[in-house]
Amino acid sequence: MTGRSVLAGLFGQGVKPSLTPELHEREAQRHGLRYVYKVIDLADAQLSPDRLEQLLRHAIALGFDGLNVTHPVKQAMVPLVDDVTPDVAAIGALNTILITDGATVGHNTDVTGFASAFAQGLPDADLGRVVLLGAGGAGTAVAHALVRLGVRNLAIADPDTSRVGALTASLGGAGIVLEPLTADALPDVLATATGVVNASPVGMAGHPGSPVRPELLHPGLWVADIVYRPVMTALLQHAQRIGCRTLTGAGMAVHQAADAFELITGQPAHREAMFGDLDDLIAAEVENAHLHQELSDERKP
Amino acid sequence: MTGRSVLAGLFGQGVKPSLTPELHEREAQRHGLRYVYKVIDLADAQLSPDRLEQLLRHAIALGFDGLNVTHPVKQAMVPLVDDVTPDVAAIGALNTILITDGATVGHNTDVTGFASAFAQGLPDADLGRVVLLGAGGAGTAVAHALVRLGVRNLAIADPDTSRVGALTASLGGAGIVLEPLTADALPDVLATATGVVNASPVGMAGHPGSPVRPELLHPGLWVADIVYRPVMTALLQHAQRIGCRTLTGAGMAVHQAADAFELITGQPAHREAMFGDLDDLIAAEVENAHLHQELSDERKP
Repeated sequence: MTGRSVLAGLFGQGVKPSLTPELHEREAQRHGLRYVYKVIDLADAQLSPDRLEQLLRHAIALGFDGLNVTHPVKQAMVPLVDDVTPDVAAIGALNTILITDGATVGHNTDVTGFASAFAQGLPDADLGRVVLLGAGGAGTAVAHALVRLGVRNLAIADPDTSRVGALTASLGGAGIVLEPLTADALPDVLATATGVVNASPVGMAGHPGSPVRPELLHPGLWVADIVYRPVMTALLQHAQRIGCRTLTGAGMAVHQAADAFELITGQPAHREAMFGDLDDLIAAEVENAHLHQELSDERKP
Repeated sequence: MTGRSVLAGLFGQGVKPSLTPELHEREAQRHGLRYVYKVIDLADAQLSPDRLEQLLRHAIALGFDGLNVTHPVKQAMVPLVDDVTPDVAAIGALNTILITDGATVGHNTDVTGFASAFAQGLPDADLGRVVLLGAGGAGTAVAHALVRLGVRNLAIADPDTSRVGALTASLGGAGIVLEPLTADALPDVLATATGVVNASPVGMAGHPGSPVRPELLHPGLWVADIVYRPVMTALLQHAQRIGCRTLTGAGMAVHQAADAFELITGQPAHREAMFGDLDDLIAAEVENAHLHQELSDERKP
């Protein structure tokens, strides 16, 4: 008799410009679903475990069906949910909370999202020896996805070596060779690697540049980036120029959103259409930025 | 670049079967709005002022744009909002909270809703001497609407005389004659009245019957009911039979929802279409109830 309406949200800091609400809501429109996805930009005072728990309890009471969770509370939310998937238990971080009849289950669609993006964008890529740049939250999700995809040797580089240690420990027992990687050793390891994934922020609009010196790349490497604003990072541009197979960050962005959408709604996402939406949204952002620049140029004396 | 999505909710007890979410969401669909309206059925433990305030603060933090509020918290929410309309200040009850950039304003669309319904359904009705049955929350809103519509003499009946006193006090200074009305005096007052409004629960599916003995009605009366499940109450059936002008509770139900929708979205509601939706929703409910009855009859040995 009545339509089903679905309410989702995103907890994190600095999340106002997120494209995820639009990705979810446009996909919901294709399903004819009444769907609202709200961005909840957390103030510093809201980051304590007590306050986060209150916020989660109230989100349940106020009818939320699901939540995405991002920096800096992906780890802090784990002890606050009733149950977690094996991925979340292994990683110690979640990015999606499913709420059903008041009970909460933590999922990590960064892991499933990267795995799906990789399987789609770089099928049959050689996972013999992979270099992972960045051992933060995103790098950790990527590492676990690479293990699931069958990586045999994984070298992990991060300026913060304690993060490398923690990630290596979380992967322990996966039956693969793991090596912490220093900047000095990077050239030699890259020379014999089969692929490289950038899971560091370098290449984002706010962190321009390439996470590895371009001359260290060679055509035998596949190169994946999880940065997606811009989609064509300096790293990927150089990799394409020398003939590497590449995977942009759009894949992980879309698949993590699609996986979360499917968890929250129980309906299969139209992933190709979501790729189109992401392209449109990024293009509109770039256009807005240019327009903004032109307007501010015009105002100059 | 991106669509605007709107989140609304209803705070109250026993509100699960409310038709208001469907009225709002269907209207939003006509506007092409992404709109979700969630029902928040309050547990007894959530009714304390502290807990209500927490719930309201979190609704703001979690992105709600507006809330409807119903029994038993229409009064309790008044001191919790930042500002109120003159109607709310006079009545001491609100049914709508508008949330804009974290600031809250309490409105009462029961008052505006009854006034609009009356103006539309009983235009030019004689407001010389009106009998109001019921001085609870709904009766109070109706009384204030009648004053706004120009009633000159208002007789108020309620088994709980303290409620009549409180309502009379809230109307004081409106320049009209107010009389508390006992059951004994009802026949004489009705005989000379120009109209009667039922704002008591008598006539609802759960409270069958008529709030006044049918023989006390006469063709010179207009008769309004605010009960809308069923739309044709015993009171209205008898009134129509003897030739009275009548107004069903559907009018107030639709106009209060339309007024709240307009406040929350800033867009003009299609009120005629909302009447059609309410008819459909009530018909579907009746059909479901019959089906349920038939199924349970079939199961009998």
